Amino acid sequence: MTSSPVARPDEVRRHNRTTLLRLLHVSGPCTRAALAAELGLNRSTIKTLVDGLAEAGMVEEKVPRPGRGAGRPSLLVLPQPQAAVVLAVDLQVEHVAIALVGLGGQILGRNSWNLRGRMREADEVITHIIESTAVLAGDLGVTPVAAGVSVPGVVRRSDGLVHEAPNLRWTDVALGERLSSVLRIPVLVGNDAELGAVAEHIRGVARGSSDAVYISADVGVGGGVIADGSSLRGKSGYVGEVGHMVIRPGESGRPCYCGSSGCWETEVGEAALCRALRLPEDTPRGAILVELRQLGNDPLAAWERLSEFAEWLTLGLVNVVNLLGPQLVVLGDLLTVLPESVLDRVGTDVRRRSLVSRAVGGTRIVSSVLGIDVKLLGAAEIAFEMVLDTV
Amino acid sequence: MTSSPVARPDEVRRHNRTTLLRLLHVSGPCTRAALAAELGLNRSTIKTLVDGLAEAGMVEEKVPRPGRGAGRPSLLVLPQPQAAVVLAVDLQVEHVAIALVGLGGQILGRNSWNLRGRMREADEVITHIIESTAVLAGDLGVTPVAAGVSVPGVVRRSDGLVHEAPNLRWTDVALGERLSSVLRIPVLVGNDAELGAVAEHIRGVARGSSDAVYISADVGVGGGVIADGSSLRGKSGYVGEVGHMVIRPGESGRPCYCGSSGCWETEVGEAALCRALRLPEDTPRGAILVELRQLGNDPLAAWERLSEFAEWLTLGLVNVVNLLGPQLVVLGDLLTVLPESVLDRVGTDVRRRSLVSRAVGGTRIVSSVLGIDVKLLGAAEIAFEMVLDTV
Repeated sequence: MTSSPVARPDEVRRHNRTTLLRLLHVSGPCTRAALAAELGLNRSTIKTLVDGLAEAGMVEEKVPRPGRGAGRPSLLVLPQPQAAVVLAVDLQVEHVAIALVGLGGQILGRNSWNLRGRMREADEVITHIIESTAVLAGDLGVTPVAAGVSVPGVVRRSDGLVHEAPNLRWTDVALGERLSSVLRIPVLVGNDAELGAVAEHIRGVARGSSDAVYISADVGVGGGVIADGSSLRGKSGYVGEVGHMVIRPGESGRPCYCGSSGCWETEVGEAALCRALRLPEDTPRGAILVELRQLGNDPLAAWERLSEFAEWLTLGLVNVVNLLGPQLVVLGDLLTVLPESVLDRVGTDVRRRSLVSRAVGGTRIVSSVLGIDVKLLGAAEIAFEMVLDTV
Repeated sequence: MTSSPVARPDEVRRHNRTTLLRLLHVSGPCTRAALAAELGLNRSTIKTLVDGLAEAGMVEEKVPRPGRGAGRPSLLVLPQPQAAVVLAVDLQVEHVAIALVGLGGQILGRNSWNLRGRMREADEVITHIIESTAVLAGDLGVTPVAAGVSVPGVVRRSDGLVHEAPNLRWTDVALGERLSSVLRIPVLVGNDAELGAVAEHIRGVARGSSDAVYISADVGVGGGVIADGSSLRGKSGYVGEVGHMVIRPGESGRPCYCGSSGCWETEVGEAALCRALRLPEDTPRGAILVELRQLGNDPLAAWERLSEFAEWLTLGLVNVVNLLGPQLVVLGDLLTVLPESVLDRVGTDVRRRSLVSRAVGGTRIVSSVLGIDVKLLGAAEIAFEMVLDTV
């Protein structure tokens, strides 16, 4: 508050370069004219910056396909994917995916494996990530310069400590430091819902929304928040444990592993969905999806089965909207496969019952559009955040 | 996300001047040496800036009282209160206070009046604010250059629209625009809890906390959030309606004016406190305070009366901490007069029952220290935000 950093003239050029590179990374190929307009810089400054980046191999310039307009077309500037490659890791409760992602957000290659029994122990997971990264990087002939990791748990951003990832049974694992010391690149670890929010904001359905919330609902339930255009996290990086909002206090609330009871997660997580569908709580994911898709064809049956689940989902979303005031809530993971008729009703009820939704003119409730890549893409973005101003 | 503003060299000097002025405004008198150290600028740059501000009458320099150290003492730079004066308005359900606040945060003069019946209508309130401001400014011989207004309701920051202030029975009142058009100065309107958070962060108990939440609990209950050092508000300025978090769903929840039922406000607002104290719900504030002070002398009786109230307070605070991850929660208004034994127990229970509190090493729950001035001081700060970079 008291002393914001003071800009020095010699920082301006570097700042412009980073801003231009970030714009190309996020928006894809742009003409020089569009870059000049977007950044508010004159054409000669843009030329100098682009020439410098082209010389360094970060971008290339192409003559765009001729359009109908008269005159010489403005050169198209493209980010070079190989110029900055990051490692993205999506650690889930039963599955790990890694990807090497190039400048511009393109996934250059990927690998994944299932976690069962001993494979889920931190040592095993870390070793496997490191080995798979080496193989993938070798195959592609690239070297990652930074890494981002998505973890379903409470993580400390500053040093990548996984404080508690209950469904993995991890406590106080120095994941960031351990990966960083072997891979010899900077590593950031983020909460999976936070990274879902980042990905949907930069490359998905929340693009252009300055205030959005992403709800991850897998075995556990979490939330990621975009506030005023940036990812919201506490100084220590702990924020958005919406799954542990107590929503069903008293006798009827189910005990939660967190020590509390009646947490939202106990009513809208995977186990709750299985109960609603009258499936055993350990039903494989595939069978849950089949059941939901079938229900999707029969709105009446869907509402009969899922109305109580939908009520708890609605109540939690009303609270999230009233506390955080987003224009948009993005539902992720299992929630994206709820029957459309149920999702529509939840959206209508949240708008009707939330004071803040009414004030912002109606918060939209939509499904995530980035599919299974959403957390990989978010993990890649926090890695790019570290390197775009240094490459 | 895509295009952050690009700094131009000619903006640097102005930026430095504003940063220095803001530091003096927030921290009070500083030596030139301390300013140089805090801002990371060399002494000659500081001298140029301070000389410019002194010439403009914004600061004065004094020789500090001689200390024991050898050598010539560094000159002390003091903000000049009269150099920039803002109007602060604290609109409450039964009471309005206005103050003229000088650079540095000193209240130069104030006035207040009660609201009853017709006096609470928007037209009457606005007229009375304008007339009282003219009288106060005349008495003090100053002219405010901007105004900030605190309102207990859902307000839109961009244009000062009061969307809903239910306890005042105001709906869609263009408060900011109407005050601004008559006073002919820029006016910002903020939610009262938001401004409580701002004030405690800049001048109170949350100073130095990068992540804090302020809970206002008067007739209504609200929340203001400091995230990563700044006040959190949605693009449209609607954020933090924690009072309308549904915490008691189902049959047992009381109906709330917002249309929902079981809202936190119905369990921890003034009416709920009266119920807990076995007082009529329309008991005057003074009588509630007397009752609470008496209970403070008898921890056993206090717990017997207030344990259920404390449980709802705890549940809501667990949710706030799990969603927002603050290091510090500041309780305001009526909550500050709860018996210390009850507040201690609530703090202990929140720390024990919140996953995120455990992760951040224990969220502290403390009482507001700025007393009845807290929202006036917050309103003054949003006004200063508008003018410090232009004066």
